[in-house]
Amino acid sequence: MNPLELIRKKRNRGTLSYEELNSLITGYVDGRIPDYQMAAFLMAVYFQKMDFEETAHLVDIMVHSGKVIDLSLIPGIKVDKHSTGGVGDKVSLILAPMVAACGVPVPMISGRGLGHTGGTLDKLESIPGFRTNLSIEEYKSVLRDVGVVMIGQTDDLVPADKKMYALRDVTATVECIPLIAGSIMSKKLAEGMDALVLDVKTGRGAFMHSEADAIELAKTLIALGERFGKKTIGFITDMNQPLGCTVGNWLEVVECIECMQGKDVPDLMEVTYVLGGAMLMLGGKAKTIDEGTNRCREAVHNGKALQKFKEMVKRQGGQLSYIEKPASYPQSKHCVEITSTSSGDIDNIDALEIGFASALLGAGRMKVNDAIDPKAGILLKKKVGDTVQIGETLAVLYSDNENVLNNVKHRVAMAFSIATEPSAESPLIHAIIDELGIHPWHGT
Amino acid sequence: MNPLELIRKKRNRGTLSYEELNSLITGYVDGRIPDYQMAAFLMAVYFQKMDFEETAHLVDIMVHSGKVIDLSLIPGIKVDKHSTGGVGDKVSLILAPMVAACGVPVPMISGRGLGHTGGTLDKLESIPGFRTNLSIEEYKSVLRDVGVVMIGQTDDLVPADKKMYALRDVTATVECIPLIAGSIMSKKLAEGMDALVLDVKTGRGAFMHSEADAIELAKTLIALGERFGKKTIGFITDMNQPLGCTVGNWLEVVECIECMQGKDVPDLMEVTYVLGGAMLMLGGKAKTIDEGTNRCREAVHNGKALQKFKEMVKRQGGQLSYIEKPASYPQSKHCVEITSTSSGDIDNIDALEIGFASALLGAGRMKVNDAIDPKAGILLKKKVGDTVQIGETLAVLYSDNENVLNNVKHRVAMAFSIATEPSAESPLIHAIIDELGIHPWHGT
Repeated sequence: MNPLELIRKKRNRGTLSYEELNSLITGYVDGRIPDYQMAAFLMAVYFQKMDFEETAHLVDIMVHSGKVIDLSLIPGIKVDKHSTGGVGDKVSLILAPMVAACGVPVPMISGRGLGHTGGTLDKLESIPGFRTNLSIEEYKSVLRDVGVVMIGQTDDLVPADKKMYALRDVTATVECIPLIAGSIMSKKLAEGMDALVLDVKTGRGAFMHSEADAIELAKTLIALGERFGKKTIGFITDMNQPLGCTVGNWLEVVECIECMQGKDVPDLMEVTYVLGGAMLMLGGKAKTIDEGTNRCREAVHNGKALQKFKEMVKRQGGQLSYIEKPASYPQSKHCVEITSTSSGDIDNIDALEIGFASALLGAGRMKVNDAIDPKAGILLKKKVGDTVQIGETLAVLYSDNENVLNNVKHRVAMAFSIATEPSAESPLIHAIIDELGIHPWHGT
Repeated sequence: MNPLELIRKKRNRGTLSYEELNSLITGYVDGRIPDYQMAAFLMAVYFQKMDFEETAHLVDIMVHSGKVIDLSLIPGIKVDKHSTGGVGDKVSLILAPMVAACGVPVPMISGRGLGHTGGTLDKLESIPGFRTNLSIEEYKSVLRDVGVVMIGQTDDLVPADKKMYALRDVTATVECIPLIAGSIMSKKLAEGMDALVLDVKTGRGAFMHSEADAIELAKTLIALGERFGKKTIGFITDMNQPLGCTVGNWLEVVECIECMQGKDVPDLMEVTYVLGGAMLMLGGKAKTIDEGTNRCREAVHNGKALQKFKEMVKRQGGQLSYIEKPASYPQSKHCVEITSTSSGDIDNIDALEIGFASALLGAGRMKVNDAIDPKAGILLKKKVGDTVQIGETLAVLYSDNENVLNNVKHRVAMAFSIATEPSAESPLIHAIIDELGIHPWHGT
């Protein structure tokens, strides 16, 4: 098939058949179709979208562009979680071992941070020695033995996504729901999971700023899950302020260890428990999400989640001594406290600004190959709803680069918005979506 | 400036400044910006368009991507004609020498045929020896000495257009009015003309199928002409049936010679005379288009147009013997007559189908580098409005390839539509457009 005709067809709002999409995608992966034709096609898709059938074909073709991992020999219903990413979103680090401790195997392939958002791989790799680049055989054996494994995408899984994502990133074609859904779902299907819980974030610090887009993406992903026989449930959760009290890789690992030791960081643990409850339900270890949530709380409070986390860290090469004594970890050369210049109630902490500030301090990357400083980041001393007095500390910034630290100070201070009268609390979990539709979340 | 941000800006319906467009276009010509980013940008322009200021910036930047020819030392107002292309559109071959014979210098840089449309260069090159690849110095000296010159685009004129057009051609971003206008006008401004007459064709065999698009393109080109100080007038003309009675390079040259010898091919000569009249008016050799049209008729009837044509052919290396004795030209190995299977009035001859059929017979190219057979083509024995009896010849097909000839026969026969009752005649020249707006054409 002539790629030019396929581009024109999509440009003219046509619907591509499986054969047409397949010729385009496999031709692109093979190198027969050049970047410039795929770039034009992707921009045409940006404007003309894809209908559900096309999106399902896209997923199918992308999955089969590489290896598909078969986990059927490992007992149990394997359940994964995918978050669309945010600032301070460290949920996976607690969630995966917690759910595994409750008897549901968790095969998790995660990504790296880019721009204002962090990535699970970068957080895990802040643990000295932790290997995220396991082979498929190692991945299977860790999952079988420990019940949880957390790695990065390997070269032989979904090569179509790697090549297409790199092109989308430089051609302004990232923000397109069928392409996002294709990218997410193809990777999840290739990793071998049986069921999936989605955390689709919405708000200033999320990839999807608007709730309508978040809901559309969640619905698309859930329908794709059903299409491929993988039960999928989604939650729309708030990402206007950072999640939890830390932003930055090692800072976030420490916060997770503390939470698994029983510390209550309310927003972080509410999301973690609800997602965990849903995973247990999908994994057949609870009848309802609430029952699953209760079992998850128990696994944290009786220490089994932390125990499972340590088991995974050890098995994947991480040095346990730092998990046991986080204070022994190297410290940033410089730190500075941001204090409040007024009194009142915190009514917003701009997650986008905090995310960029943290990245500038060294915790993130602006370009794919930038190096990361695992120690750098931001500790939030106040969260939305807290009362603050003039002179009180709002946040602490950590960096090895004093100049950047001084430049970023003002940006972090401006990210806090302080109201003189208390503002209405907005819910953390906006809704739950399943194959039957969208429902308000009742709270826990 | 970051090309990614410029793509995103256009994608989000933004308006690019001169500096932004300049950084993108010159970066692309230099090779600093890759094809894939330009392809995504062009597709974004396809959907979000460019406003007039942006289109004017685009023209300015494209013109200055290469050399700009200065014809100011050649006396007179230099007037060119541009046609958006069609089937059997051989107007330039008569028009350019005819207008030059009336004292208006005609510097004409033309293109080649592609797909169903023919190109002036291919027609000229069917004359053995005719050189279309003159240097800029030769181009100027032929124009000065003969008063008319017809060449192809040289490598140093508007390199931005060459590179962008080649990319548009393979990324389905050709059909976009600001990009078409930029491509046309940058080449015309670089060739050194002072004024321009446009023949914007509309209908089945035209590049612009819809009249609304043809009018929008004409208005954009005229406004660009005014912006750059070049008086421009446009005509919207019909391209539902082929123009004249021949389609194919040498066949068309012969038809032009016969017309310059006084033969009347009504539709071909009506367009030629009206465009010529407008060129004479713009060139200061007639007060009105009608006066110019009458002077053009005179130049054909007194033989001066043909004389000027021969002078140009000789000067550009063409063998005059073939012009003087067209019958001495080689003939196609095979020819076949298409006869009518019914009686009635011809109410349509599908120009698109005839154009493709002629190209398949050898007269055109499907890909830029395909070879052309100058002898091949189609002779129309009947035109729209003619009465035909069963068994009468509709057309004669010429080709060296007997297989193709047999395959194409049916296609040509199907292109003729015969009605049992006479249908309403549609006008050949739909409208004239100038800087004041669009006006109905009164006829000649």
